This record gives sequence, structure tokens and C-alpha cells, in this order.
Amino acid sequence: MTVALVGAGPGDPDLLTMKAARLIAGADVVVHDALIDQRVLDLIPLSAERIDVGKRPGRSTPQEMISTLLVELGRQGKRVVRLKGGDPFVFGRGGEEALALLESGIDIDVVPGISSSIAAPAAAGVPVTHRGVSAAFTVVTGHRQAGEPAIDWRALAKVGGTIVILMGVAHRDDIAAELIAGGLSDDTPVMAVRSATTSEEVVQRCRLDDLGSTAIESPSTIVVGAVAAFDLTGARSVAHAVNAR
Amino acid sequence: MTVALVGAGPGDPDLLTMKAARLIAGADVVVHDALIDQRVLDLIPLSAERIDVGKRPGRSTPQEMISTLLVELGRQGKRVVRLKGGDPFVFGRGGEEALALLESGIDIDVVPGISSSIAAPAAAGVPVTHRGVSAAFTVVTGHRQAGEPAIDWRALAKVGGTIVILMGVAHRDDIAAELIAGGLSDDTPVMAVRSATTSEEVVQRCRLDDLGSTAIESPSTIVVGAVAAFDLTGARSVAHAVNAR
Repeated sequence: MTVALVGAGPGDPDLLTMKAARLIAGADVVVHDALIDQRVLDLIPLSAERIDVGKRPGRSTPQEMISTLLVELGRQGKRVVRLKGGDPFVFGRGGEEALALLESGIDIDVVPGISSSIAAPAAAGVPVTHRGVSAAFTVVTGHRQAGEPAIDWRALAKVGGTIVILMGVAHRDDIAAELIAGGLSDDTPVMAVRSATTSEEVVQRCRLDDLGSTAIESPSTIVVGAVAAFDLTGARSVAHAVNAR
Repeated sequence: MTVALVGAGPGDPDLLTMKAARLIAGADVVVHDALIDQRVLDLIPLSAERIDVGKRPGRSTPQEMISTLLVELGRQGKRVVRLKGGDPFVFGRGGEEALALLESGIDIDVVPGISSSIAAPAAAGVPVTHRGVSAAFTVVTGHRQAGEPAIDWRALAKVGGTIVILMGVAHRDDIAAELIAGGLSDDTPVMAVRSATTSEEVVQRCRLDDLGSTAIESPSTIVVGAVAAFDLTGARSVAHAVNAR
């Protein structure tokens, strides 16, 4: 009995791993999130059962129910693929599902996926590290939930590396204020990218002190730091909304 | 004229992306690093030219020569794959090569790879984030080079997330001392993994104050934080050297 916890990557099915594509093609049942790209879902065999446990406002499936479902499916001896956006262990709650399965005596196979924390900036021409510019990057959630350990944004401002914020659109004003209070300059470059690696990709750029007043749609990946001013996209066309003063 | 900057992932060829595998299979020339897994190199067609520009002690190829080589090959109209370990933009100096190519009028295609910064811990059963335990992770190089921006390790200790250190074996004693001086507990869990996702995978665990005195071979990925105590590997066999007091 093995349940595969599989990362679906940032959207483009070409960025699935060989292993992920093979496991999806051979699955009896695929339990997937809401935000999985339709082109990836189209790879699920017609004979396989599909279960959407996506957490959308008003119709979410509690995490405990998802874990219970995975345990039940695993016990049935089915080839179960739990398909998660990006990487299972980057804010994917894959660790909770892994624990529930292991505690129930079901083996797991964790298949890493391309994390949008790195690939979304890359799609917008922004390298999270760059020699002489950034020797570290921090990936952090801007979504505050009860029971989560606090992030010290002012300390983060002092580290000296790139900051990649996921799920941070709603609190971007507060986050920018904290980072500036921690010592980052008002004019620190910021880049936000939505729907990276899809045809709907939107890239926006602004200064850190303009982040709160810049209209950004959720979900977007926000990059703060000198690398956010880079545009290594070459001839590719992406919509830029440069908002520098 | 397009040169593809392709991430080869952490080692296991099954963790190549679909796009990377296709580009490798169709390449006229592959310019690769020293640390690319042999099983990935075996996917290069026999008809393709292979150029090893790996940086090994005593026989390194300067970065400028690599960039010049890529520009020359790109101008020849060949299908060029620049194959880099992990992800091209995570300490891969992919940004420098991208800049050199773009400045020479050659288009680039950046293909993300599974970064060992996330996949190496995952292979050892360690999720870089976990609900209620870690809501952020920082990936940082422990390798100090002239001209690199300084990392404030004491500030990093205060952020409150997981710390993933690449190329940090040589300076692990100093790094541990700085993190403890910054406020991390002596008994903060540490996990080190080498050759992740290969048959030579070695996992070691210790406390932060034992990191300097624990024998760790380079290159290893070192994880510092509460998640480093996790072992979500299920039935897989990995060599553990638990060194907790």
C-alpha cells in the first residue's frame, strides 16, 4: 500500500517531472487541489477516478477529511496519486498527509515538483539568486493563520537575500511596512507574477513603498529584493506594468 | 538562435521535467556541469557533442569562458542545452549566462529544475515547511566568496523559519555559532543529506551545537530548524546517524 504525494509544478504540464507524468498516467484515482492547471488534469486517464478536494472559499474540504480519504483509498490497494500544486512540501500541507498515511501503516512516495516559489520568478525573468546581488532567498507565506509560528519580518529584512512571498497579496501593505521598518529601502525593487508559465501570465513591477497601493490580483508570487529589477526573459512577451516613480 | 538553460534536478533522472528530457534528447550540443548524475548524462544522444565545463578544484573553467562558449554555440544555430544541477537560478550562475546570451542577441529558454534545496530534504523525510512548525524557509549558501553580499546569520536566526544551507560543510562550525548567537537554541534539530535521490544517499542528524563536530562530507545539504527532526520516509531505507545527546 503506497500513496504517491506528487508535485504538479507551476502550471505548464511540460514542467511535470517524468515520474509525476508516469504516476498520473498509471493512477486508479487522483485526488487533486483546485488550482491544478487544466492541461495537467487532462493527463489523468479517463478510466481513473478524479476527486477534487480543492480548498475554495465557501466549499473547502477540511484537511483532516483529505487525510482520511487518502488513508481509505490507500487501504483499498488502489494506485493513488495525491496531486498538489508546486511541490508537496512547500506550503502544500503534504507533511500532514504524509504523517497521517505513515501513522496508518501506508507507505508514501513523495515526488517533488517544480515550486512556483522559484519557477514563477524565473518565468518573469527574475533569478532568486544572482552572483554579487543575492546569496540567499527566503520563501515565506503572507497568509496568517492561527497556530502558525510567527515570522519576524523585520529580522527578515536584515538577512540580506531575496524575499519570495506566497499568498501575500491581502497583507502586502503591512508586509511592506514591516520590511521597511526592518531596514529595507523604500525603493527596493518588487516584482509580482500571477499565473506563471501559463498563457495568462501577468508580471508587475513596483517599489517596495508602492507595494500596498499597487493593484495586484491574488494569487500572485511577490519577489522583494535587488533581483526583482532583473528581466531575463529575452524575446518572450509578458505584460509588464512598471510602476516605478 | 536560442540557448536553453536547463535544470537537471537533484540527480535521479526520473526527476527531470518533461521539457528537460525532450530538450536533452534533441540537443546538438550539451554543455554540462561536473556534478550532473551519470544517469542523466546517459540521456544525451550519442550524436550530440558533450562539453564538460564542470568546476572542479584545479581544473575549473572560468565563468566568463563558459558564457563565451554558450554565445559562440548559440550563434552557430545549434540546438544548445546548458545543463545545470538542480535549478539554473538557484546558485547555478544561470543569471550570468542568461545576461551574456541576451546581451549578444541570443534568446534563452530557462527551464526550471527540481532544486536540491527542497528535494534533498524531502528525500530525507524533511518537509521545508510544515503547518504549525515552519511557515518559511531560507535557502542560503555557506560558501563565502569575494564580492558576494553578506548574509546576516544572526538576523536569519530570528526570522522563525527553516534554514537550508547549501555548500556550507566547510564553514558549518562558524555558521552554527552565528545562528546560536542570533538566538537559536543549542538543541535546534539539524539534518544533513548527501547524494539525495541517488543510491549513495546519506542522511545524518545532530543538534545545532554539535554541527561543527559532526563529520559531514561535502557536498551536503544542511537543514536547521524544527522540521529537521522529521522523518517522513516511510518504509524507505536511508542511513541515519542520530547524534542527539
